[in-house]
Amino acid sequence: MIMDNYRPLILITNDDSINAPGVHHLAECVRSLGDVFVVAPASPRSGQSAAMTVGSPLRIKEVESTQEGVRLFTVDGTPVDCVKLALHAIVPRRPDVVFAGINHGSNSGVNVTYSGTMGAVLEGCIEGIPSVGFSLMHHSMKADFTLSTAFVAAIAAEVIAHGLPDGVCLNVNIPARVMPEGIRVCRAAHGKWVDGYKRYVDPHGVPFYWLTGKFVNFEPEATDTDEYWLQRRYISVVPVNCDPSARNEIKTLADRFDAK
Amino acid sequence: MIMDNYRPLILITNDDSINAPGVHHLAECVRSLGDVFVVAPASPRSGQSAAMTVGSPLRIKEVESTQEGVRLFTVDGTPVDCVKLALHAIVPRRPDVVFAGINHGSNSGVNVTYSGTMGAVLEGCIEGIPSVGFSLMHHSMKADFTLSTAFVAAIAAEVIAHGLPDGVCLNVNIPARVMPEGIRVCRAAHGKWVDGYKRYVDPHGVPFYWLTGKFVNFEPEATDTDEYWLQRRYISVVPVNCDPSARNEIKTLADRFDAK
Repeated sequence: MIMDNYRPLILITNDDSINAPGVHHLAECVRSLGDVFVVAPASPRSGQSAAMTVGSPLRIKEVESTQEGVRLFTVDGTPVDCVKLALHAIVPRRPDVVFAGINHGSNSGVNVTYSGTMGAVLEGCIEGIPSVGFSLMHHSMKADFTLSTAFVAAIAAEVIAHGLPDGVCLNVNIPARVMPEGIRVCRAAHGKWVDGYKRYVDPHGVPFYWLTGKFVNFEPEATDTDEYWLQRRYISVVPVNCDPSARNEIKTLADRFDAK
Repeated sequence: MIMDNYRPLILITNDDSINAPGVHHLAECVRSLGDVFVVAPASPRSGQSAAMTVGSPLRIKEVESTQEGVRLFTVDGTPVDCVKLALHAIVPRRPDVVFAGINHGSNSGVNVTYSGTMGAVLEGCIEGIPSVGFSLMHHSMKADFTLSTAFVAAIAAEVIAHGLPDGVCLNVNIPARVMPEGIRVCRAAHGKWVDGYKRYVDPHGVPFYWLTGKFVNFEPEATDTDEYWLQRRYISVVPVNCDPSARNEIKTLADRFDAK
């Protein structure tokens, strides 16, 4: 519950770096809702999941902002580093929310596992702060974020006003190049990436490999998944458990393993 | 079900690199159970979660093995890269299991999120392969892994023989410096890392920060957590959901968000 006269503190990060338009668009969508601190990686960190920097130090740099009510910082680390270091050394009080994105590219389905955007969101959730990741299904740095502005602002305002269940954060994906039909809360579609690597041979005859491939949805018929609703031009909102323990399996597995 | 005359293929990786004793001890624990391929990072990759390398190429190098039935390879990437590239270009047939570890250090509680060991295990699980991460609660490269050998071999044999539930992998943590009392299947304790960074000032007067801190268990009284059983000298086995969707929350959140 937000009190009168209180300005919520909104911490924003991403994984595409401070130079990506998506993070500045997200700040613009929410800056009327509170004091905004953007703390973003100094360079792109896509596919970094919840990786954190343990073997080397990190630096913080404030950079000039052109948006009123928005301060901008870089950290030369991962999205998780940005959230951790923001809480430790940048923001003047505990954030009311952590938002990540808007990512240039989908984080639907299995991508939630690899996503640096969602890594930052998990970090916010571990800290007990309501946290949401936003991703647009378009990789281009010239992607048009404006069609979903009202939806992003509405989701952000709802989370700022009423929080989220303990231990649960949100993975929001936005269809590209269309005015969204609406919002659907759903689960992640099961699938994986296939045809994983392009093979090259260097001038010395030694092979090397570059990650590629395409996402395959294992359950295209299921009507309760993010992939299903995104294809129908809806914004998907997947609630994500911070604790991945499979509690339903404990009893059955105990019968197999406890006696070993 | 494993047929007579069939040699299971066991894919092993870790996040401490090919130079860490733990991965070779794990290979030794299980090499009587099948053909072992160790595909490990060329350099340490702790805290890498499910990060993958998207912006640069990867190389594979086979290195000499002194263990019969064990082949050793390095990939100059993350634990997830190791599993992906092993499946794509190294192993001669689909692995029957993916094992990661034995990690030098705990991956209990919230560490499951940051762990490169468990990132590799999630990748195996996404591929539909029964996958288990093993971690010893001792960071030293000279840690003694021998006290738990029989338990590790028993867990590995059980998973090879009977698999795991779809979409579920295991996070196994092993108490250090003691003969384990037994095994307990349980859930991850809730907690987080506090006192996050040590602050330095460089010769030019500019501050920099190095990650540190200690893990705080939010629920030390709970008797169904990994932290509880590890303190009592048991090996903890936490079943982990590959899909983090919080299905129980979908209906309640739909009432809040679908109409936005």
